[in-house]
Amino acid sequence: MKNFDINEDPHRRFNPLINEWVLVSPHRAKRPWQGQNETISTESLPKHDPECYLCPGNVRANGVHNPAYKNSFVFDNDFAALKQDEIIFEEDIKHTFFKAKPEQGISRVVCFSPRHDLTLPEMEVSDIENIVKTWQKEYTDLGNIKYINHVQIFENKGSVMGCSNPHPHGQIWAQSSLPTQVEKTHNSLKSYYDKNRRTLLEDYVQAELKAEVRIVIENEHFVALVPFWAIWPYETMIVSKRAISKITDFTAEEVSAYAKILKQLTIKYDNLFNTSFPYSSGIHQAPTDGFDHPEWHFHMHFYPPLLRSATVKKFMVGYEMMGESQRDITPEKSAEILRQQADVHYKNTVK
Amino acid sequence: MKNFDINEDPHRRFNPLINEWVLVSPHRAKRPWQGQNETISTESLPKHDPECYLCPGNVRANGVHNPAYKNSFVFDNDFAALKQDEIIFEEDIKHTFFKAKPEQGISRVVCFSPRHDLTLPEMEVSDIENIVKTWQKEYTDLGNIKYINHVQIFENKGSVMGCSNPHPHGQIWAQSSLPTQVEKTHNSLKSYYDKNRRTLLEDYVQAELKAEVRIVIENEHFVALVPFWAIWPYETMIVSKRAISKITDFTAEEVSAYAKILKQLTIKYDNLFNTSFPYSSGIHQAPTDGFDHPEWHFHMHFYPPLLRSATVKKFMVGYEMMGESQRDITPEKSAEILRQQADVHYKNTVK
Ligand SMILES: O=P(O)(O)O[C@H]1O[C@H](CO)[C@@H](O)[C@H](O)[C@H]1O
Ligand SMILES: O=P(O)(O)O[C@H]1O[C@H](CO)[C@@H](O)[C@H](O)[C@H]1O
Repeated sequence: MKNFDINEDPHRRFNPLINEWVLVSPHRAKRPWQGQNETISTESLPKHDPECYLCPGNVRANGVHNPAYKNSFVFDNDFAALKQDEIIFEEDIKHTFFKAKPEQGISRVVCFSPRHDLTLPEMEVSDIENIVKTWQKEYTDLGNIKYINHVQIFENKGSVMGCSNPHPHGQIWAQSSLPTQVEKTHNSLKSYYDKNRRTLLEDYVQAELKAEVRIVIENEHFVALVPFWAIWPYETMIVSKRAISKITDFTAEEVSAYAKILKQLTIKYDNLFNTSFPYSSGIHQAPTDGFDHPEWHFHMHFYPPLLRSATVKKFMVGYEMMGESQRDITPEKSAEILRQQADVHYKNTVK
Repeated sequence: MKNFDINEDPHRRFNPLINEWVLVSPHRAKRPWQGQNETISTESLPKHDPECYLCPGNVRANGVHNPAYKNSFVFDNDFAALKQDEIIFEEDIKHTFFKAKPEQGISRVVCFSPRHDLTLPEMEVSDIENIVKTWQKEYTDLGNIKYINHVQIFENKGSVMGCSNPHPHGQIWAQSSLPTQVEKTHNSLKSYYDKNRRTLLEDYVQAELKAEVRIVIENEHFVALVPFWAIWPYETMIVSKRAISKITDFTAEEVSAYAKILKQLTIKYDNLFNTSFPYSSGIHQAPTDGFDHPEWHFHMHFYPPLLRSATVKKFMVGYEMMGESQRDITPEKSAEILRQQADVHYKNTVK
């Protein structure tokens, strides 16, 4: 019998945002790896690639020419997962097991820069501010469409995350329903707010700032931290300090502070394994259903797959799919490692 | 305005086992793929590999020699995610955000065969019966340990599923708590049973047998089908026709019928892309908490990543992680394609 040591003993942690647990096995980071290695592309990219369907002036799959855009550029996904068609539908309530509903929506692609070879950590803060403003515009425009109740802004970065084009870009899938993961968060935020009249993340950020150990970066308006309940080895979350329910409520100062922390966090990520660090990121914010959402608190998730090096990722497979998410390194350790990374991008370091 | 066509229009389907939705985009199967390709190993394996730590007689990482086993062989994982140590722990209820609990458990490895080069579809039915009997024994032995309330039997197959050794093997993680995914299923099964006095899957299987379109294989005691709410392109589920709560309740005939359907399903999988088909599979069955579980109904999930070919997988990334699971091909279409696969393994087909 020994006393519980959270840094050494297997344990479960609770995620109050989605009401689920994660299994943490700190001691397991030591096991040797004999499995699959990812391939990393080290070729340096041209500023403009004539073959890239996202570069300014080039032709897309549907024959349309991209404009000679100077900042960001948004277009409707040529192979959208959602369609705008209005569908007539009568629910068949007899079906206990075969419950289905048409879903109306719009999928867009957001090019972050005309430059084919730049990613967020290598862009100027002012360029990132432009991306944030583009996200604000899209959240407003899409959110204003009557049948759109949720706008999911996200980025898949790196081929290991299913990204098929290195040109810096993200996506937006806007739709009628609250997607499953968002609905879980919505319910948690709502019940916390109803009880405490403060947002869950307002109080959580305060508790984390006090605890210090999981903070990666902090500025006047935002915090980047490894959540206590993080699943992915180097998962982080950017949270606003103020209770802001949506990106369109940012002050000009907050837009700039957010752009800064985005750059700083992604620099640390790239420096971790001296590679263009892959991840999926996404913004969670208030639904666009026309109601006020004081319970919602703007945050952005980063789910990066890498575990040990630029080529060894964490596999979320058998146990994780059937049982629950499992991690080998503690969030505190990950935060410490990220914090220690230089603030200058490795490509810009004089050797 | 057009009428809803479930084979053509984007829609959401409901999964009553875990109370979550999935987004289905049937039209999207047509989009071209320019992203990452998986590498497939086509080298033929030796019957015994002197370098393999799972082969009979060989030495493992901890210096122990494997016995000269003839059927299956079980040992405690040398790099276990769970540990058996009893931990003293006083819950700190002040912590709203930092909720953690030690977790006690045992991780085991189950070698399916002494042969390094065989996978389930290539084994004899009698060999697979032996594996089933091994699972029964482990479920009993581990379940009988006082602090073990759940026994998760699973297999990661293929390097794309994080499997680091082609020697046919699965794992068992047994622990105190019901893991997150199992708890969701438990709650759904329980509330259905409390209301209907029949198991949810008993009624679901009947409805599927009547509908026919999602059935892949059927024998006297088991059905292999693509669930109406499947997430992965070729996801399937093997369900017992009878309401059996756990693998130790199988009759001798059921053991044999289960071994047969396991072989038949994995043959169809291998034949789909003429490759050793990767997947994670896992058995969901009654908790081992000492109580009766009439609500539980034995089933086995198969989550295979491949989408279009032996090298192109479905990426569950940005939208799927932030929003909800999304699929491009309908479950009905997948079931049809799987059904059409030959019943003889492609390696044994005379060309
Ligand atoms: O236990 P293994 O085979 O070393 O590891 C594999 O399966 C485990 C259980 O699903 C996962 O946690 C690991 O990420 C995966 O690589
Ligand atoms: O839309 P893309 O970039 O073609 O596709 C990528 O992102 C999508 C949204 O996360 C996923 O559904 C796809 O599996 C992935 O390959």
